[in-house]
Amino acid sequence: MPKYDPPLRDIQFVIHELLNAEKAFSELPAYQDVDKDTMNQIIEEAGRFASEVAFPLNQIGDKEGCTRHEDGSVTTPTGFKTAYDQYVAGGWPALSCDPEYGGQGLPQLLNTVLYETLNSANQAWTMYPGLSHGAYECLHAHGTPEQKSIYLEKLVSGKWTGTMCLTEPQCGTDLGILKTKAEPLSDGTYSINGTKIFISSGDHDLAENIVHLVLARLPDAPKGTKGISLFAVPKYAINTDGSIGGNNKVTCGSLEHKMGIHGNATCVMNFDGAIGTLVGEPHKGLNAMFVMMNAARLGVGMQSLGLTEVAYQNSVVYAKERLQMRSLSGAKAPDKVADPIIVHPDVRRMLLTQRAYAEGARAFAYWTALMIDTELNHPDESVRKDTADMVTLLTPIIKAFLTDNAFTATNEGMQVFGGHGYITEWGMEQYVRDARINMIYEGTNTIQSLDLLGRKVLGDMGAKLRKFGKLVENFIDEEGVRKEMQEFVDPLADIASKVEKLTKEVGMKAMMNHEEVGAAAVPYLRIVGHLVYAYLFARMAKIALVNKTSGDPFYEAKLATARFYFAKLLPETAYLIRNARAGSKSLMAMPADLF
Amino acid sequence: MPKYDPPLRDIQFVIHELLNAEKAFSELPAYQDVDKDTMNQIIEEAGRFASEVAFPLNQIGDKEGCTRHEDGSVTTPTGFKTAYDQYVAGGWPALSCDPEYGGQGLPQLLNTVLYETLNSANQAWTMYPGLSHGAYECLHAHGTPEQKSIYLEKLVSGKWTGTMCLTEPQCGTDLGILKTKAEPLSDGTYSINGTKIFISSGDHDLAENIVHLVLARLPDAPKGTKGISLFAVPKYAINTDGSIGGNNKVTCGSLEHKMGIHGNATCVMNFDGAIGTLVGEPHKGLNAMFVMMNAARLGVGMQSLGLTEVAYQNSVVYAKERLQMRSLSGAKAPDKVADPIIVHPDVRRMLLTQRAYAEGARAFAYWTALMIDTELNHPDESVRKDTADMVTLLTPIIKAFLTDNAFTATNEGMQVFGGHGYITEWGMEQYVRDARINMIYEGTNTIQSLDLLGRKVLGDMGAKLRKFGKLVENFIDEEGVRKEMQEFVDPLADIASKVEKLTKEVGMKAMMNHEEVGAAAVPYLRIVGHLVYAYLFARMAKIALVNKTSGDPFYEAKLATARFYFAKLLPETAYLIRNARAGSKSLMAMPADLF
Repeated sequence: MPKYDPPLRDIQFVIHELLNAEKAFSELPAYQDVDKDTMNQIIEEAGRFASEVAFPLNQIGDKEGCTRHEDGSVTTPTGFKTAYDQYVAGGWPALSCDPEYGGQGLPQLLNTVLYETLNSANQAWTMYPGLSHGAYECLHAHGTPEQKSIYLEKLVSGKWTGTMCLTEPQCGTDLGILKTKAEPLSDGTYSINGTKIFISSGDHDLAENIVHLVLARLPDAPKGTKGISLFAVPKYAINTDGSIGGNNKVTCGSLEHKMGIHGNATCVMNFDGAIGTLVGEPHKGLNAMFVMMNAARLGVGMQSLGLTEVAYQNSVVYAKERLQMRSLSGAKAPDKVADPIIVHPDVRRMLLTQRAYAEGARAFAYWTALMIDTELNHPDESVRKDTADMVTLLTPIIKAFLTDNAFTATNEGMQVFGGHGYITEWGMEQYVRDARINMIYEGTNTIQSLDLLGRKVLGDMGAKLRKFGKLVENFIDEEGVRKEMQEFVDPLADIASKVEKLTKEVGMKAMMNHEEVGAAAVPYLRIVGHLVYAYLFARMAKIALVNKTSGDPFYEAKLATARFYFAKLLPETAYLIRNARAGSKSLMAMPADLF
Repeated sequence: MPKYDPPLRDIQFVIHELLNAEKAFSELPAYQDVDKDTMNQIIEEAGRFASEVAFPLNQIGDKEGCTRHEDGSVTTPTGFKTAYDQYVAGGWPALSCDPEYGGQGLPQLLNTVLYETLNSANQAWTMYPGLSHGAYECLHAHGTPEQKSIYLEKLVSGKWTGTMCLTEPQCGTDLGILKTKAEPLSDGTYSINGTKIFISSGDHDLAENIVHLVLARLPDAPKGTKGISLFAVPKYAINTDGSIGGNNKVTCGSLEHKMGIHGNATCVMNFDGAIGTLVGEPHKGLNAMFVMMNAARLGVGMQSLGLTEVAYQNSVVYAKERLQMRSLSGAKAPDKVADPIIVHPDVRRMLLTQRAYAEGARAFAYWTALMIDTELNHPDESVRKDTADMVTLLTPIIKAFLTDNAFTATNEGMQVFGGHGYITEWGMEQYVRDARINMIYEGTNTIQSLDLLGRKVLGDMGAKLRKFGKLVENFIDEEGVRKEMQEFVDPLADIASKVEKLTKEVGMKAMMNHEEVGAAAVPYLRIVGHLVYAYLFARMAKIALVNKTSGDPFYEAKLATARFYFAKLLPETAYLIRNARAGSKSLMAMPADLF
């Protein structure tokens, strides 16, 4: 019953008008041919695949879930395999991959667009190719030549898929205490023994083989996180000619029953002497895995953008159709029994909250994706360094800010439907359930906030943050003189100066008491997230103002959304700043046994 | 796997120390015998029933849901009927009911405690007796002598249950457009025709008969809400001797599949010439139904308090047991592989948020329940009037503030569990799913906020609000002189004066533009909710300060929670006030077709 229309115009607005990606790509040798038309064609086709192939399976996947059979094999919901076959036939797994392994060599930015639309359509399904792409990136960056030749072409074509196997029953956040063991064998391979849990796409019937990237300890490993190595462990052994051999003693022990993403197989994976090969250096597995985890964190942000967009679209349809009560300022549809609920201010608040979070998230995520393309491809080393710093700074914000906002947004979307929102057939409650996991996996949002404040801001004395601050400052200097931009520039300047002040304050307090970092981190991340959004909404408002006279109502809507953001959402920072400044005292005062 | 211990000490603290209920009851002739020991005995037994009988069925109910058979009959989950039989055998339905009909004649306050514990144990199950009690209250207030003699004893004993049938496919909030028809018959009864949806406990196998209280239109009914009448429609016809006769053409057409409260039968009810009798006066059905709806709104608040408490308890257990990472200020459990996560500031923030919301909700709900007892039983008319005004003012706040907070709190509880929180077997995600409906039914939280700001505050020029303000003022005057109370009194005085100012401002703006009420209502309700909590936490802190020297750590914990509330939660009002003051402009600017 829900619907999904790929928001092509909004996507193109960000790519062409906000980011001017064509110009940016002209400076990157690898992407000089990626022009506007090419991009638009891919965006449209991605949207078509998402809405026509992946979307119709979303409610089916939620209802059916996955099935584990006695032999440990897993069957995905009806239609998932056919859709995956179409995905492979369309060459989508290869979109942004290295041409050396059969990839299309297109920018990360376009892959990001693809993932927005896929996640709007079907988050659970999208996690199968999504994790696979992460495994590709990890092996591409850290694999041995042999591993690359065995795996990369298969992952790029989509014939095989990949997973990341980190979590164990006793550890998720704290990988330092993981127990899975890797014993070296005489032929240079390793025997892997242990149990991994919460393995998304851990087993399924979509592809011929699955390569598990598994964190484990070598016999001589130091304790803690410095003794973790990474291994590539295929589901089926691979013969020397690359063909598939027998079972490799890695099986799905059970499937988790969970709140949402039912269509994805969340597996307990048992490794019982499975044979794997070492990826990267011994004991440095976390470094290698971080390539995949950073990609995954951006990926989780795209999941949340996708859900925000689709929830918004459906609640708008409902709000225009559902007749209930009269407008407080007099009947707006006097010929009908009641007015459509979109006349009511609080319904509009709910719709605009979703809309602003979708537009902000899209601008933020695409901008970051373009910086990743720049980081990896720009001829100038200092540009590469600067963009790399920015991406490092922004990654935890994308993960946590977008996923928190998406949970708010999908809940607002559901609330617009009243009682119908709680009923499964309307589809809205599934978006809430699916969105909920995004705040947890790939590092909980608390972990993201500690990564941001502890490591990325205080860890380099604010250097990376100042690079972002410089961008904001330049924009303020440039636009602050234009009268019609003041309504945006003034609050942007205000929040920018407050972030600067708060950062110093927390930094000072943290030197005296480390708990202050933990106490301030979560509100701090949201505050910086709002600074990023305020910057991007101000930039988008500028474009809308310039084009307002064109008569295209698209720009009027962009301006109205930006104004709503500044009036109603940005002021959350007034609370967050007080919360962060209140520090650790009230958190740490109560003895643990009194809880 | 989850656990539930009735929080007896916390309940008793509110009843005896905060409210001094024994003294309050000594002024109410009906309850003069209700002493501390009686109350404690009932509290303990209620807790025992909830934790030992209702709680073990909570996950079963979620997993199994209800089943509708071909004849329209509904079977509840395994164990639900046995538990209901025990509930009836224990006399629990009768607790606060009129002795004239077999009730125990005990205060509403004790029934409120019962419902807190039942809802912690099993919200879906509790809705069967809960709606029944609402039907009892409605018929007790508005039923004809004949209806009372037929129904009340059966509802009080629990042999029969009741429902409320308001919503129809085309209307929920807007009852003015409901279509169900009531045709008068020659014998003085009515033939009811129509379809009702979202009928909680609409059909089931727990009781011998069900009385549906149904809103419908008489043939000569004026349009809109002034043409709605209320009817009592039994599932089975009732013979003149009170025995049960044949089917009454009211059947469950289908069960809804929904996000949570799976154990409760949410029915589409078809009335195909069902015979009913008129409750109250023709066309004044909404007045009669409001008795039930107000009770239900407080009941929904209790659902949310219950879920907040049980989610808190479970996340505390997990946070003490789960070992993950070291404290930022150095290892706290050096003998273990990692520290229990309760050492981390942000885990404590999540726990304390739940705890503060549980303590605040309990104080608020019990205080209101005691005012209802006073309103209904005090010999002095002016006291009855004052408490009635307060209850009227506070009811929408209990419904909306407690349910929004419970959704936050259950989500924080789930987040403490990390990935395990998302897995069904741990029980935490069910609390989130169950809590979500509370923000929607019995009038969405937007409707509550409009009721508060539009009808109850601006509608009487702030008279009721000033009665509450006077209480706060008196407390500030009394306690403001004590130095150790300043940390609580100062912020309380601050938020009280801000509420006063904001109310005037919104009132002025509303005179120029009605949309301002709709734009401000949702943040306004939360702001007043925080004022209530600030007042109650200050009062609780006072008691804790007085008793601190007793050496009982219970008071230390109360004080720590109050301090946390003032430091970390109350400052949300800084955002909410800005949001409310930002008004309607940014909400109404966008033309509907641009959404």
